[in-house]
Amino acid sequence: METLWSQRYALRTRRMQSSIVRELLKLTEKPNLISFAGGLPAPEVFPLDEFREAAARVLTESGPQSLQYSTTEGCPPLREMIARHTARYGIVVQPENILITSGSQQALDLLGKVFLNSGDRIAVERPTYLGALQAWNAYQAQFLGIAMDDEGMRTDELESVLRSGPKFLYALPNFQNPTGVTLSLKRRETLIEMADHFGVPIIEDDPYGQLRYEGEHLPSLVVMDSCARDRKPFSGNVIYLSTFSKTLAPGLRLGWVVAPAEVIQRLVQAKQGTDLHTGTFVQMVAYELAHGGFLNKHVQHIRSVYGARRDAILASLQKHMPAGVRWTKPQGGLFIWAVLPEHLNATDVLVEAVDERVAFVPGSAFYDDGSGKNTMRLNFSNASPDKIDEGMARLGGVIRRALERQPEVIPQKV
Amino acid sequence: METLWSQRYALRTRRMQSSIVRELLKLTEKPNLISFAGGLPAPEVFPLDEFREAAARVLTESGPQSLQYSTTEGCPPLREMIARHTARYGIVVQPENILITSGSQQALDLLGKVFLNSGDRIAVERPTYLGALQAWNAYQAQFLGIAMDDEGMRTDELESVLRSGPKFLYALPNFQNPTGVTLSLKRRETLIEMADHFGVPIIEDDPYGQLRYEGEHLPSLVVMDSCARDRKPFSGNVIYLSTFSKTLAPGLRLGWVVAPAEVIQRLVQAKQGTDLHTGTFVQMVAYELAHGGFLNKHVQHIRSVYGARRDAILASLQKHMPAGVRWTKPQGGLFIWAVLPEHLNATDVLVEAVDERVAFVPGSAFYDDGSGKNTMRLNFSNASPDKIDEGMARLGGVIRRALERQPEVIPQKV
Repeated sequence: METLWSQRYALRTRRMQSSIVRELLKLTEKPNLISFAGGLPAPEVFPLDEFREAAARVLTESGPQSLQYSTTEGCPPLREMIARHTARYGIVVQPENILITSGSQQALDLLGKVFLNSGDRIAVERPTYLGALQAWNAYQAQFLGIAMDDEGMRTDELESVLRSGPKFLYALPNFQNPTGVTLSLKRRETLIEMADHFGVPIIEDDPYGQLRYEGEHLPSLVVMDSCARDRKPFSGNVIYLSTFSKTLAPGLRLGWVVAPAEVIQRLVQAKQGTDLHTGTFVQMVAYELAHGGFLNKHVQHIRSVYGARRDAILASLQKHMPAGVRWTKPQGGLFIWAVLPEHLNATDVLVEAVDERVAFVPGSAFYDDGSGKNTMRLNFSNASPDKIDEGMARLGGVIRRALERQPEVIPQKV
Repeated sequence: METLWSQRYALRTRRMQSSIVRELLKLTEKPNLISFAGGLPAPEVFPLDEFREAAARVLTESGPQSLQYSTTEGCPPLREMIARHTARYGIVVQPENILITSGSQQALDLLGKVFLNSGDRIAVERPTYLGALQAWNAYQAQFLGIAMDDEGMRTDELESVLRSGPKFLYALPNFQNPTGVTLSLKRRETLIEMADHFGVPIIEDDPYGQLRYEGEHLPSLVVMDSCARDRKPFSGNVIYLSTFSKTLAPGLRLGWVVAPAEVIQRLVQAKQGTDLHTGTFVQMVAYELAHGGFLNKHVQHIRSVYGARRDAILASLQKHMPAGVRWTKPQGGLFIWAVLPEHLNATDVLVEAVDERVAFVPGSAFYDDGSGKNTMRLNFSNASPDKIDEGMARLGGVIRRALERQPEVIPQKV
């Protein structure tokens, strides 16, 4: 329907597109479809009883305050708890360094609003989280991609990117979305050193840091930056983002930013005009659930469930994937990254896969430059190990048939 | 603390400021302060028991789905309910015409993101809702103010404003924030006619429409536009915004947009990059509370409580305000607008008022051009009638003393 609005869209909308991941969430409602798309936590791990009790307790004990308007910064007890939690991980911050956001996605949007002019360049991993590309495309940013390998961002590509003067560098060092790869300690050191040398600040996005299933915890960039410069507490040059979406529940839409107080104040101004504040009730429920120690226990439970699923998907990939398909072996998080022989197009594969009732996300969605046509992101947190094996059998069959039709196999490096 | 971020703020941040209303919410935490600032619902009317039961029912009956990611458009049952509700008020829309937002404030932000280029002009009532000024300042919009009187926007000023080609006109026809004034039926007709003639679409913001304490309900602009053009269902040229903040609870952060499906799709793309979706749990709780008829009954209760408070504040104003102060007599909503003698500055009055433990919002915050220095917005929904009278006695005393010190009284028209 043509209306007076139809001719009035802003220029920036030319760069804004519907996310393939979001559109796929609709596809996955098909009955009996096994989905490796999305980044959905396992429904079985949601602590429903604890939520019910926490919601009742909040309404009884805090009463009307839990349903009233509240401050843009976020509810004080929740901010204080997060500041304590951050301090335990190695840097001393105050509640004034914490902003509660409506999911981590909102943090990306607000950072764009506060820092990006049209045409500003942002250094990103290639591939990177597509929600960040979406958020910053709306501010007409340009992206400078840095290739990845099994140790994460290739720091030998850093110098030329940092020299060209990006506004900031965006990194997901732990179990990256989409590749599942973790930035090695050595490369973290190099990254901090070079970013410091070239004066480029960093946004560190860490939604999965707590979901490690093997190996040693590596220090966050924000911690390393503060230590390297010997100016604990908190150098302020790395802004750190995290979320309750993967540890409590994504349907709450609760994330947070750790940043210099001055930056938090700007983000607060931006947030006032964006949604006034994040929901009071859900903040209080999250605090109620998290502060007594339940969250720590619950995260251990999630780790054991998801760790088993990661093992299951790795075994199933080995069993069902035809020769020529390669994949990453993540130590945590929710995702595996698979690379098909170069002449196959993952979007074509997806069309057939959905017919066979199995889904994934074509990897090109995560490339700032639209490359990666032969890549795919596989989520392993949502389906049970049995379903994972069944789904991988279906997907393996689809890829095998595609290879039989198009047999020209060109070996390719990850 | 100077960090690498300090020199990197976007140009648009020069136009973004912290809202005085939000900052005042902090002031009002002073003990024994009686606040006519903010736009806070009465805590006594929040249906705490019903919320507790609804939250428990949602977690029991919908289980994990209530905590999981959900679609950007909003939860289908809630969208369907709102479409039915909108249809009952006179225009036929489908769920595809509804987007659930994180409060009405987010609708303003997303509309800015989708429609505004830097320098675009927006026609607004003068004064208007300051959250709209904030949201659209971030997109570097210009404002064209239209003066108000007791019948709302002065339609004799419309022609010159519409001729200058604003991207859209923004109006709050019912019990406007900040003035409490309602746009008369005749002026609504003129507005629709002239906007149609000049081809300017309208955003109608209606957070208070259901809170009428006397007089007849007037048709919404969105309904009148569809009827006037004899093209029910839904002409699409008026986008309509509303919210559960004033009928259920603001701490949920739940609003909605009614718009052409094509516009909804663009807003959805913008929302994906902004916060993925509005919280699943709170949407389900709101649906659970609203769909069985409870909300209608509850709104009647709110009307009776707030109606009494409006009567109380009008009586107290009459009793305590010195000569030379004038105010509006709203038929609904949450606000009264008071105009001081022209030589008084309401911000100076506020400083003294806070010392006397009473607060309000200086009216100049609501003017796109910074005028209105002698005006003030008084909220009457939050405090009890007793407190209202005590607060007005304090405020009347502060203004009387200011007038005694600065006696030059110049009569002024509202």
